Amino acid sequence: MRIDMRSDTMTQPTEAMRKAMYEAEVGDVNAFEDPTVLKLEELAAERLGKEAALLVTSGTQGNQVAILAQTQRGDEIIVEASSHIVMLEGAAQCVLAGVQPRQIPGKRGVMNPKEVKAAIRPFLDPHYPKSAMICVENTHNFHGGVIVPNENLAALQEIAKEHSLRMHMDGARVFNAAIAQGIPVSEITQYVDTVQVCFTKGLSAPIGSILAGDKETINTARHWRKRLGGTLRQAGVVAAPMIVSLTEMVDRLAEDHANAKLLAEGLANIEGVEINVDDIDTNMVYFSMKEDSPLTVRDLVIGCYHEGVLGGMMTPEQVRFVTHKDITTEDIHKALEVINRVVRSKVTA
Amino acid sequence: MRIDMRSDTMTQPTEAMRKAMYEAEVGDVNAFEDPTVLKLEELAAERLGKEAALLVTSGTQGNQVAILAQTQRGDEIIVEASSHIVMLEGAAQCVLAGVQPRQIPGKRGVMNPKEVKAAIRPFLDPHYPKSAMICVENTHNFHGGVIVPNENLAALQEIAKEHSLRMHMDGARVFNAAIAQGIPVSEITQYVDTVQVCFTKGLSAPIGSILAGDKETINTARHWRKRLGGTLRQAGVVAAPMIVSLTEMVDRLAEDHANAKLLAEGLANIEGVEINVDDIDTNMVYFSMKEDSPLTVRDLVIGCYHEGVLGGMMTPEQVRFVTHKDITTEDIHKALEVINRVVRSKVTA
Amino acid sequence: MRIDMRSDTMTQPTEAMRKAMYEAEVGDVNAFEDPTVLKLEELAAERLGKEAALLVTSGTQGNQVAILAQTQRGDEIIVEASSHIVMLEGAAQCVLAGVQPRQIPGKRGVMNPKEVKAAIRPFLDPHYPKSAMICVENTHNFHGGVIVPNENLAALQEIAKEHSLRMHMDGARVFNAAIAQGIPVSEITQYVDTVQVCFTKGLSAPIGSILAGDKETINTARHWRKRLGGTLRQAGVVAAPMIVSLTEMVDRLAEDHANAKLLAEGLANIEGVEINVDDIDTNMVYFSMKEDSPLTVRDLVIGCYHEGVLGGMMTPEQVRFVTHKDITTEDIHKALEVINRVVRSKVTA
Amino acid sequence: MRIDMRSDTMTQPTEAMRKAMYEAEVGDVNAFEDPTVLKLEELAAERLGKEAALLVTSGTQGNQVAILAQTQRGDEIIVEASSHIVMLEGAAQCVLAGVQPRQIPGKRGVMNPKEVKAAIRPFLDPHYPKSAMICVENTHNFHGGVIVPNENLAALQEIAKEHSLRMHMDGARVFNAAIAQGIPVSEITQYVDTVQVCFTKGLSAPIGSILAGDKETINTARHWRKRLGGTLRQAGVVAAPMIVSLTEMVDRLAEDHANAKLLAEGLANIEGVEINVDDIDTNMVYFSMKEDSPLTVRDLVIGCYHEGVLGGMMTPEQVRFVTHKDITTEDIHKALEVINRVVRSKVTA
Repeated sequence: MRIDMRSDTMTQPTEAMRKAMYEAEVGDVNAFEDPTVLKLEELAAERLGKEAALLVTSGTQGNQVAILAQTQRGDEIIVEASSHIVMLEGAAQCVLAGVQPRQIPGKRGVMNPKEVKAAIRPFLDPHYPKSAMICVENTHNFHGGVIVPNENLAALQEIAKEHSLRMHMDGARVFNAAIAQGIPVSEITQYVDTVQVCFTKGLSAPIGSILAGDKETINTARHWRKRLGGTLRQAGVVAAPMIVSLTEMVDRLAEDHANAKLLAEGLANIEGVEINVDDIDTNMVYFSMKEDSPLTVRDLVIGCYHEGVLGGMMTPEQVRFVTHKDITTEDIHKALEVINRVVRSKVTA
Repeated sequence: MRIDMRSDTMTQPTEAMRKAMYEAEVGDVNAFEDPTVLKLEELAAERLGKEAALLVTSGTQGNQVAILAQTQRGDEIIVEASSHIVMLEGAAQCVLAGVQPRQIPGKRGVMNPKEVKAAIRPFLDPHYPKSAMICVENTHNFHGGVIVPNENLAALQEIAKEHSLRMHMDGARVFNAAIAQGIPVSEITQYVDTVQVCFTKGLSAPIGSILAGDKETINTARHWRKRLGGTLRQAGVVAAPMIVSLTEMVDRLAEDHANAKLLAEGLANIEGVEINVDDIDTNMVYFSMKEDSPLTVRDLVIGCYHEGVLGGMMTPEQVRFVTHKDITTEDIHKALEVINRVVRSKVTA
Repeated sequence: MRIDMRSDTMTQPTEAMRKAMYEAEVGDVNAFEDPTVLKLEELAAERLGKEAALLVTSGTQGNQVAILAQTQRGDEIIVEASSHIVMLEGAAQCVLAGVQPRQIPGKRGVMNPKEVKAAIRPFLDPHYPKSAMICVENTHNFHGGVIVPNENLAALQEIAKEHSLRMHMDGARVFNAAIAQGIPVSEITQYVDTVQVCFTKGLSAPIGSILAGDKETINTARHWRKRLGGTLRQAGVVAAPMIVSLTEMVDRLAEDHANAKLLAEGLANIEGVEINVDDIDTNMVYFSMKEDSPLTVRDLVIGCYHEGVLGGMMTPEQVRFVTHKDITTEDIHKALEVINRVVRSKVTA
Repeated sequence: MRIDMRSDTMTQPTEAMRKAMYEAEVGDVNAFEDPTVLKLEELAAERLGKEAALLVTSGTQGNQVAILAQTQRGDEIIVEASSHIVMLEGAAQCVLAGVQPRQIPGKRGVMNPKEVKAAIRPFLDPHYPKSAMICVENTHNFHGGVIVPNENLAALQEIAKEHSLRMHMDGARVFNAAIAQGIPVSEITQYVDTVQVCFTKGLSAPIGSILAGDKETINTARHWRKRLGGTLRQAGVVAAPMIVSLTEMVDRLAEDHANAKLLAEGLANIEGVEINVDDIDTNMVYFSMKEDSPLTVRDLVIGCYHEGVLGGMMTPEQVRFVTHKDITTEDIHKALEVINRVVRSKVTA
């Protein structure tokens, strides 16, 4: 048995995706001659409510070309302190774009608009970097797949407009946010200038992300994508499964959310587990072990691993399980059994 | 009729490649769990005579992570003045790596070892950047697919070793150099620390390049690949066709070379065409129009385009035709007819 | 009347400094031939308990070459969230060094060692920047000239050593910390690898800072100083007054501290002023106006300005007055009279 | 005896300069309150025919802030291959500004306008960096203090305007060019958008350069100067001697030129010396030893050094002697005697 809930990036491509790759009509992307890429970019732009879209090879690349295209060296971007951009992109925005991420600790990943406003540099002065951009992450990974409320996005957008800042969303999992709220994704993305959406997570494509925004920004982003080596040749073979993601895989995310809830509820009933079921917004389940538990988080992760249930230690105190296409409701039940057994074996040892 | 000789990047994936994608066993590259990628990297390293190899999404990315991994900011790299790195990578080495490309004009793309040696900074001094690397391009694109002689590589390698410099080869088309010389590619790559090989040109894969070198450098390069957003997820679908390239498509390059020679010989017989048939080393045919010709290069390219024969203007004075998998010997004959007709129509007009 | 307490950077050079400049023996610093610079660097290194020292043209330059010399592009440095490096150096560490400042909010500018430790990346992984350095600011400007306790420095040093991180002190005003604690400055600087000390603040030199550390780092820093354009020619004219600072101006800082205390005590007696006298560690007095005061901070600063008493608004809610060589005890009394008058005029209006 | 002709940077400040420093009225440059700096910047701007000027701490800093202020990361600047910017600024433009210096080998340091034009990228394309700037060096150091003819500057300016490029002059010694041609310096600087002039060479100030240009560019440059740590505090003490340079030291450069000519003529009469007297445009004398001479350049430089005559080996084949304020006509005669003696001792040995 192998129930791999380390991440939704583990999803395998579907048969439809494999077939789409096999049959894809392709050409040279550098010459704008790949019809499948052009179709994907058009579909994605439309779905996200933006003028244009650009195929990039990963979420990191999408975020970074968004930053490169909308800032100048020496600028400052305002970003939640535990966001993917700060934590998991190798400080790329500093070394590639030469911008400073000003880090605002959010409440469950959601920045307080007042604090964002206070972080904007009050005027141009040689001491200050120029405030250029606000970045939000939706859903927010390190805080447990949290949905950033639309009211928060609206408040941040207003601040951004008032101060002529750009606004970017790391929307790697923004479709999870849309499905969980039962709204079209464009109701969320309307609040930002650019959005990156990753297709290799719940959407199950093997490769690829999309950056969407206005035409001019996307065109500049295309120049930066080239410098990062992200401009592929016959990229239709990558784009074809992404089209399947868009057309067939979005609504399915609801199942992952239900499974995550189920898992959380099961966990809440296990002795020693510290979890708040109400915190589960989408497909991520973060939890820890109570201080008086004889079992550490590390014990738990290793114990489950040996029984084929894979999760990830995010910090020494936190485990993460992520539900996705390749995890069934039955898998959740099995996983809960395993976790229960691992906990009990220790408690009774 | 469409005979597209703008570039060998235009090659379509073969049926075997499509099938390989369809069937590819895949996993998450970030977790080192994609068996097809691991297999490709192993095969490529072995073939190129290096300890390790890394899948990258393009030749530009391969060159750039090679530079990032083997230099520090503020260093200098020594590179031929009209190489791809200087001309066609958007100054990426400057903005990403913060290194200065010291530009040595070569003779047909081949740098004089004495000039390379003279360009090395004589000692550490705050005025000087540290000389860190020599880059060669083999075959050299802008000089017409020229093979850099092994003796030249050996001489440069000796200089590099003497001055503790790294040596990198932009070997996007190094298999062309190997096949044309009838030697294993490792006889060429032995002279360098790292080599980038592009699989989307004559080797016909839809996507992908390889960077090969020692383990430590490749590991550092992997970190930089992440920052550039080049770390894919289920990249086996990209790697599978690249394995086909390695196993089935290398020897075939000889046909492209024969076709290029045939094309060059035909062109030499056309009035007004300026070409030296002996300059054709591999699959590229650069030529110009004599000054007294009533036809400009631009006229020729446009005239041919309207008859379905596509070439590229590289400068206002130079056309390039590139032969590749999707160009047959018959296509060459047809193309020569078209070119002849276009030239005559003008001459007799 | 003009009592300028906007900053201790406003200090005028003393007669002894002017004379020292006039008489300075000078040579070309690029050739290591300026005897006055060499003497200053030797004196400063000795005083700070380090192997070597380097003249730089400003505190910002000292911090930046320290970062450049002790990190590689793509690294992460751990730094207090409201430190000078984050707030007032134009994001230079990002655009020049390509490193990410990981921002730890401190308590009165003092970082919690546990939080610093938790911020260190747990291992090398392409997702993570490498943790390279801890930066402390002592005294801490934006928190009111706060002294970072030696125990805190010791705890951070232990963490740095354990994780092979470098440790840098922005000690622009570290002599204030030493004098206020009645200890030699080297008892403070022993905890860090490099320290930047600014001579244009309480020490009253017209120009110049010192970066001190081990020989190898200082030598690397010299290379970076050149790139920033900070290598002067006959810099003895700058170094000569800095020698006067070191030999004649250090003990005098005690007067500034006494004046700051006096000012704070006076302010505490003024209706509507919010200040904690115990918070005054050195020569800075930050305060605000109580919420129910009819007077805003802005009113106060402008009102005082018109009567010749200059302070600075640091945020919309905070004023800063800084005592220094050109502020006498009598000036403090006069300033308090003015402030009192401004507050009363409003309160009674 | 010590006749130091290694560089005109060796010049000692004059008595008038020392007095000016002693008496300088100063304030905080960050607050625009240093009257001496403001006066210098006004004088310099006027003299150079520009709207505004900025005090920087060195020629390197002036060039670098000019580049930073007039380009964006990823751009390309076109620059003579052996210019100071390429050779002696530690690759700063790459690591600080992220721009690529495209290197055009000039004839005696003077770029052919046709080659400059051909180097401009023909259009915006992701493969290309954007061509942003042309840089000229006048006088050109590594080619022997060569004056760039005004016709060449005019031709380059026309190209720059046509392609919307900025044009910068590294005019570290532009006053030498003006005096040697008997024209106001503004007749030269009219051809460029920005010019950097160094005051520590023939103009003999201990410290300081000026960057002049339009107001907007100079304002942007001021922001970058801050990031490089070049914004001083009471910089009037640096500016005061620079004012003396401008008002008292410019015409004197003619003497250096006469001395250089005298030295060159004397050298031409020494057996084995290879020199073209007509090549001496200003205050630099480059020469080499004939291939059949028993004396190498290295022998000569060391031999002279031991007799108190200091010159510099610029390459293994070239010596440079630079005349300046502290070199008299009598020194030239003495130096020739020494050189003669050193050469003869070897020849007759």
